[in-house]
Amino acid sequence: MDYQNILEEIQNEIQGSLKKGKLANYIPALEKVNADDFAMSLVTLDNKHYNIGCTEQKFSIQSISKVFTFTLALKRYSKELYKRVGHEPSGDPFNSLAQLEYENGIPRNPFINAGAIVTTDSLLSIYKNNTFEQILKFIQKISNNNSIEYNEEIFKSELNHGFRNIALINLMKSFKNINNNTDKVIETYFKQCSIMMNTKELAQAMLFLANHGINPPTNEVIINELKAKRINSLMLTCGHYDASGDFAYRVGLPGKSGVGGGIVAIIPKKMAICVYSPKLNAYGNSLVGTRALELFSTKTGLSIF
Amino acid sequence: MDYQNILEEIQNEIQGSLKKGKLANYIPALEKVNADDFAMSLVTLDNKHYNIGCTEQKFSIQSISKVFTFTLALKRYSKELYKRVGHEPSGDPFNSLAQLEYENGIPRNPFINAGAIVTTDSLLSIYKNNTFEQILKFIQKISNNNSIEYNEEIFKSELNHGFRNIALINLMKSFKNINNNTDKVIETYFKQCSIMMNTKELAQAMLFLANHGINPPTNEVIINELKAKRINSLMLTCGHYDASGDFAYRVGLPGKSGVGGGIVAIIPKKMAICVYSPKLNAYGNSLVGTRALELFSTKTGLSIF
Amino acid sequence: MDYQNILEEIQNEIQGSLKKGKLANYIPALEKVNADDFAMSLVTLDNKHYNIGCTEQKFSIQSISKVFTFTLALKRYSKELYKRVGHEPSGDPFNSLAQLEYENGIPRNPFINAGAIVTTDSLLSIYKNNTFEQILKFIQKISNNNSIEYNEEIFKSELNHGFRNIALINLMKSFKNINNNTDKVIETYFKQCSIMMNTKELAQAMLFLANHGINPPTNEVIINELKAKRINSLMLTCGHYDASGDFAYRVGLPGKSGVGGGIVAIIPKKMAICVYSPKLNAYGNSLVGTRALELFSTKTGLSIF
Amino acid sequence: MDYQNILEEIQNEIQGSLKKGKLANYIPALEKVNADDFAMSLVTLDNKHYNIGCTEQKFSIQSISKVFTFTLALKRYSKELYKRVGHEPSGDPFNSLAQLEYENGIPRNPFINAGAIVTTDSLLSIYKNNTFEQILKFIQKISNNNSIEYNEEIFKSELNHGFRNIALINLMKSFKNINNNTDKVIETYFKQCSIMMNTKELAQAMLFLANHGINPPTNEVIINELKAKRINSLMLTCGHYDASGDFAYRVGLPGKSGVGGGIVAIIPKKMAICVYSPKLNAYGNSLVGTRALELFSTKTGLSIF
Repeated sequence: MDYQNILEEIQNEIQGSLKKGKLANYIPALEKVNADDFAMSLVTLDNKHYNIGCTEQKFSIQSISKVFTFTLALKRYSKELYKRVGHEPSGDPFNSLAQLEYENGIPRNPFINAGAIVTTDSLLSIYKNNTFEQILKFIQKISNNNSIEYNEEIFKSELNHGFRNIALINLMKSFKNINNNTDKVIETYFKQCSIMMNTKELAQAMLFLANHGINPPTNEVIINELKAKRINSLMLTCGHYDASGDFAYRVGLPGKSGVGGGIVAIIPKKMAICVYSPKLNAYGNSLVGTRALELFSTKTGLSIF
Repeated sequence: MDYQNILEEIQNEIQGSLKKGKLANYIPALEKVNADDFAMSLVTLDNKHYNIGCTEQKFSIQSISKVFTFTLALKRYSKELYKRVGHEPSGDPFNSLAQLEYENGIPRNPFINAGAIVTTDSLLSIYKNNTFEQILKFIQKISNNNSIEYNEEIFKSELNHGFRNIALINLMKSFKNINNNTDKVIETYFKQCSIMMNTKELAQAMLFLANHGINPPTNEVIINELKAKRINSLMLTCGHYDASGDFAYRVGLPGKSGVGGGIVAIIPKKMAICVYSPKLNAYGNSLVGTRALELFSTKTGLSIF
Repeated sequence: MDYQNILEEIQNEIQGSLKKGKLANYIPALEKVNADDFAMSLVTLDNKHYNIGCTEQKFSIQSISKVFTFTLALKRYSKELYKRVGHEPSGDPFNSLAQLEYENGIPRNPFINAGAIVTTDSLLSIYKNNTFEQILKFIQKISNNNSIEYNEEIFKSELNHGFRNIALINLMKSFKNINNNTDKVIETYFKQCSIMMNTKELAQAMLFLANHGINPPTNEVIINELKAKRINSLMLTCGHYDASGDFAYRVGLPGKSGVGGGIVAIIPKKMAICVYSPKLNAYGNSLVGTRALELFSTKTGLSIF
Repeated sequence: MDYQNILEEIQNEIQGSLKKGKLANYIPALEKVNADDFAMSLVTLDNKHYNIGCTEQKFSIQSISKVFTFTLALKRYSKELYKRVGHEPSGDPFNSLAQLEYENGIPRNPFINAGAIVTTDSLLSIYKNNTFEQILKFIQKISNNNSIEYNEEIFKSELNHGFRNIALINLMKSFKNINNNTDKVIETYFKQCSIMMNTKELAQAMLFLANHGINPPTNEVIINELKAKRINSLMLTCGHYDASGDFAYRVGLPGKSGVGGGIVAIIPKKMAICVYSPKLNAYGNSLVGTRALELFSTKTGLSIF
């Protein structure tokens, strides 16, 4: 298929939507972006690259980091972690304090904030004061790019406005589902959210999940096949908060969105995709990004269903 | 792959689990089954059939009927129906009255009871007094079997114990999300649940969903490709109540379970599967059936992820 | 104190509020009233009567009937009934299906719909087909007025629009907290709601609760002192749905409101009060009625606090 | 009435219950008490004192402090504070994070933790770094006792185990319903909870609420009559968490309990009461204390109903 041509068609068709949606505004740092930016990158298992738009433009990966930390944790844990975080969609529109309280501090899945915080806590138990460095190193490795870094201003800004996340971690601590110091965990968590990457790097970083756990450029086993499939399953059922069903319905691909405007998705045995556009829809997912992936799925007929 | 051999391995491996689980006991009729029965049927797109166990044994299809009525409704409706029933997983462990109230009588998806009742109501608006006959005829057509019927005793029993479903329909009626007489809708709904089929018939009936909407034996377009994919997506994210994520995680296939002990699943572009074993796990899904599908997925490596 | 003068002051002061609020409109019959009507009646333990406004105007007592049926049930039951209905305020703004589901079909208190339906069910177990007649006879007795009747049009109208109440009773039946036929219980319940009384009759009917259970005109013990106090306590904490705290805060008297526009209240050892004005505030309580009672409490300094 | 004799009867009758219930154990400091202690003190408006048991024994007042800080805040605020904290009972059995989230960070009433934290925050806006000293001074004044102090060990212990309260304050901060630094507010709040008093002092401190706001020994107006009545109303409807209705039902007096084992109650125009016994019932209220007040109400016939 002529993917480059399809990317160009998509870029044309989404122009009318670039004015829609709203920038994330809970922290000032996230509003300092070009609101009309658009970028989309594909990487195939046989190392072909297709790009359109500002694919060099870095943005904070935010919740996309949850896929990477969960992968890192799954390398070391299995049942111990499953006891602390579930793998069911969180249907609750009220994002999760209520649900977390009803369910005794066990988050529904690793891709809502509470679940990702537990994941980071589990990493802190392994890597101690070195945790963030290990997370960063892991992301650098899977994206074949040692220059990836986090953004201090965004990190600080998250930390100063993260009251709801601090509420989440303290509620879980009261249920004894956080083992480390809450301040350290939350700092590490906000740092991982403020890692800066562009669509090229993110597509590359996701490629091992399209390849049953093996990173194509290096042939390194990042995670075993069963776990890779399970991460994909989780992205499909839980990757987009309470719009996860809608995303599966429209796009039909395992994916994960971040409030910074990025969305990653994979097509098993074929490719990884990343799209970026910072304005969000009502569910907190990139409006144009979601539309672009829906168009991609329709035009190529590629879908897991 | 030698599917017959794999089915035999599965039958051996699940023997130890046949004593586990509990029969559905909310109506007496459902307890009148052989508790240790097991059957599994595969049908491939190229018309190969693989069977093991009591594949002639009929059982009530219960919630599996939701897939068929939703398909039938989607042939006639699209946006009008999407306004009345969502396509998000229902994460609520308390099965749905609370959620339905919070969300103004709009069910989360067509595969929970409330959503299936709305679907049946939408069919009643088309087919009037002929609705159940049309549903039955549709199921007979897609399974190439005109002898399929419902069981009067199970139907009556459902009707006499269906207080929670009557609560659901009246709550939706109070929100004006039911257009027809509540008694008529609920009768039609309970009749569709008490349709009797065996694993062979159910696997055959699901085959069009593995084939992008076209029924392989007849080449008839049952539903268009886009809608077929969306039904599959819904089965994956919402097919097993609040264990849907777990099923996706373990089995990795779109499927739908019924409290009668049946589970159907499809492998896109390959085959349809039906497994039967009447004892249920804590989530109300066939315990051995879930295990058998997990084994099948592991042994064959077939999964959409 | 010159109560007649105080009633006249109140009538003057509420004039500006008579245009505010909205008539109950869930059934057409309730809209057929004079929207600007106002009436207020006091009866003291020593048989003095004070009236202002259209105190002869009958209206449907609606939820005020819950006080009478609960009294009647408490004459025969105590612990058996306490197991089936609690005595805690229902803080839930979503009126009660969600809460009822979380709490396994046990209503919070007898003054929300679900609780009153359980109360009526308990009476049906005693009085069988004669239940409504016994309820009516009891109300006639405590108000010394044999002409009191229910309104057939309002009853029928309630029955045809009572989907939410039918949902409530079926949900409770599914939890085995309804012992009789649901249709019979709900019919009796809607009939009791459509009993027609004026403010004079209602004030008289409440007088035994201001007198520790003894009906002043006849000296008959309607209910024992302990139970009379408990009914008063329930009216204070639960008499006005999720505005009960606000009513206690502003008015400081045990009371019960009905969606027909009536509110009854008692001052222990002193008097019973009834006020009527059919337009409702956002909580479903008579807007002018609430204001009139607040003024009465302020002007007289009478309050239980 | 011979109150001293009644106290003696009560002391006899509660002996059998002293073995029941459980000490609060969420912080080690609270377990360091004599589990079988019992004390009860009455103070009448005309300055008569009745005592039984270890009425000199100090204990941490915990949630009883909420009455004092709310009174202090009401002296300065009215509508501004009502916007930030409601006056409805919190029927939610799950203590309040869920409810607080559904209701946008506005606590139901000032006597649940979230509401008391908002109250303390409102005091911090007035008294700045001097806030705790002002709270303590106020309590010393109304109890006519300058020796009252807080307990450093209990305070520190609360601070180190207060994850759920820290979750509450951060959730409210995310809704902008906390104006000051969260650490400062929570420290002040935990200090007020760890103030040590005995039953004599607490009965004395509550006396102004039995006297419409005027402190009998000094005739000082602590708060105006209307506000005093409203505080009493709040104690009745909201003073005992989700057992408030039950307390009103059984005891029939405005009161407030603390997890340290104390309960205060008032009889309007008559007296203030404090009872102490550290073992708690399932609702977190003193088991013997509740029973003692129920006996007192039954024996004296005193009740607001």
